Amino acid sequence: MPYVNIRVAGTLTKEQKAKIAKGVTEVICNEANKPPESVLVMIDELAPENIAKKGELLDPPA
Amino acid sequence: MPYVNIRVAGTLTKEQKAKIAKGVTEVICNEANKPPESVLVMIDELAPENIAKKGELLDPPA
Amino acid sequence: MPYVNIRVAGTLTKEQKAKIAKGVTEVICNEANKPPESVLVMIDELAPENIAKKGELLDPPA
Amino acid sequence: MPYVNIRVAGTLTKEQKAKIAKGVTEVICNEANKPPESVLVMIDELAPENIAKKGELLDPPA
Amino acid sequence: MPYVNIRVAGTLTKEQKAKIAKGVTEVICNEANKPPESVLVMIDELAPENIAKKGELLDPPA
Amino acid sequence: MPYVNIRVAGTLTKEQKAKIAKGVTEVICNEANKPPESVLVMIDELAPENIAKKGELLDPPA
Repeated sequence: MPYVNIRVAGTLTKEQKAKIAKGVTEVICNEANKPPESVLVMIDELAPENIAKKGELLDPPA
Repeated sequence: MPYVNIRVAGTLTKEQKAKIAKGVTEVICNEANKPPESVLVMIDELAPENIAKKGELLDPPA
Repeated sequence: MPYVNIRVAGTLTKEQKAKIAKGVTEVICNEANKPPESVLVMIDELAPENIAKKGELLDPPA
Repeated sequence: MPYVNIRVAGTLTKEQKAKIAKGVTEVICNEANKPPESVLVMIDELAPENIAKKGELLDPPA
Repeated sequence: MPYVNIRVAGTLTKEQKAKIAKGVTEVICNEANKPPESVLVMIDELAPENIAKKGELLDPPA
Repeated sequence: MPYVNIRVAGTLTKEQKAKIAKGVTEVICNEANKPPESVLVMIDELAPENIAKKGELLDPPA
């Protein structure tokens, strides 16, 4: 029952999400010997002002 | 200090959220012997295009 | 496809986990109109020294 | 590679997010001896109706 | 800065983890146009008694 | 009710965890105007073989 949570900065198109979900599911099924129907993927799109690297927001205050 | 994160496809009404939070908290308190005030529940409502089963989005591209 | 993550301090017996998983799944199915087979529950048992309330570990250094 | 997820009720200003990201990153770098560029912070702002304490939503139904 | 959390039932070999991390990173970089060095993957291996489908633990009490 | 999840590679001493929990709680209380007793911190220590950057495990197979 693999559960995969993917969190990205900004938005993805529905096509990008579809390809990512398909590709990630294939990788996990192939490498971990899990049936595809057991894989659950959830994608979170975060605003760049809600993500920080090195202590600085990707979209910092002016 | 149980922390419960519930992630669903689509939206729930406020009434549904209230009943789920109450019911889930009761189950955990009863079975795990935790005081209700220690239970923190957070609900995430995801768009169906952000969830995939079997490598396919619940709301796939046309 | 509800996904539920329950994080508790300390350990639970297998019986407690079974009852919690059953009860939580029932609550979500009943209130959110989801089929039981779609509900995925994952339980994390954390050592009390890995949880803090009010800035203090549940199991603080001596 | 510390990953930090901060989930709050309601919204924060961009200035608050910037200060929190900076402060949390500093604490972790100082105490855990990690380089700042390795710290990834993600902030989730949840509607009060999606959070419950004691089995009651912070923003309950009328 | 994609962050990916993969949670599986049972354990994986180091070789399996390496292939999954590589493959998942490639999929996300290719489809979402992210540089590989920005992708952080964290794998959690859960005991089957800590995961439930349909309200039943994968490793239920006797 | 801020919830903070900190995930690190390797282990921390109890003293390090205590300082991180205290410091992170202070930062969030000061910047977000939250009472300290509302802040819940959970720390996850992951084996380096369960974390990847750039598609490579921190502790790769030989």
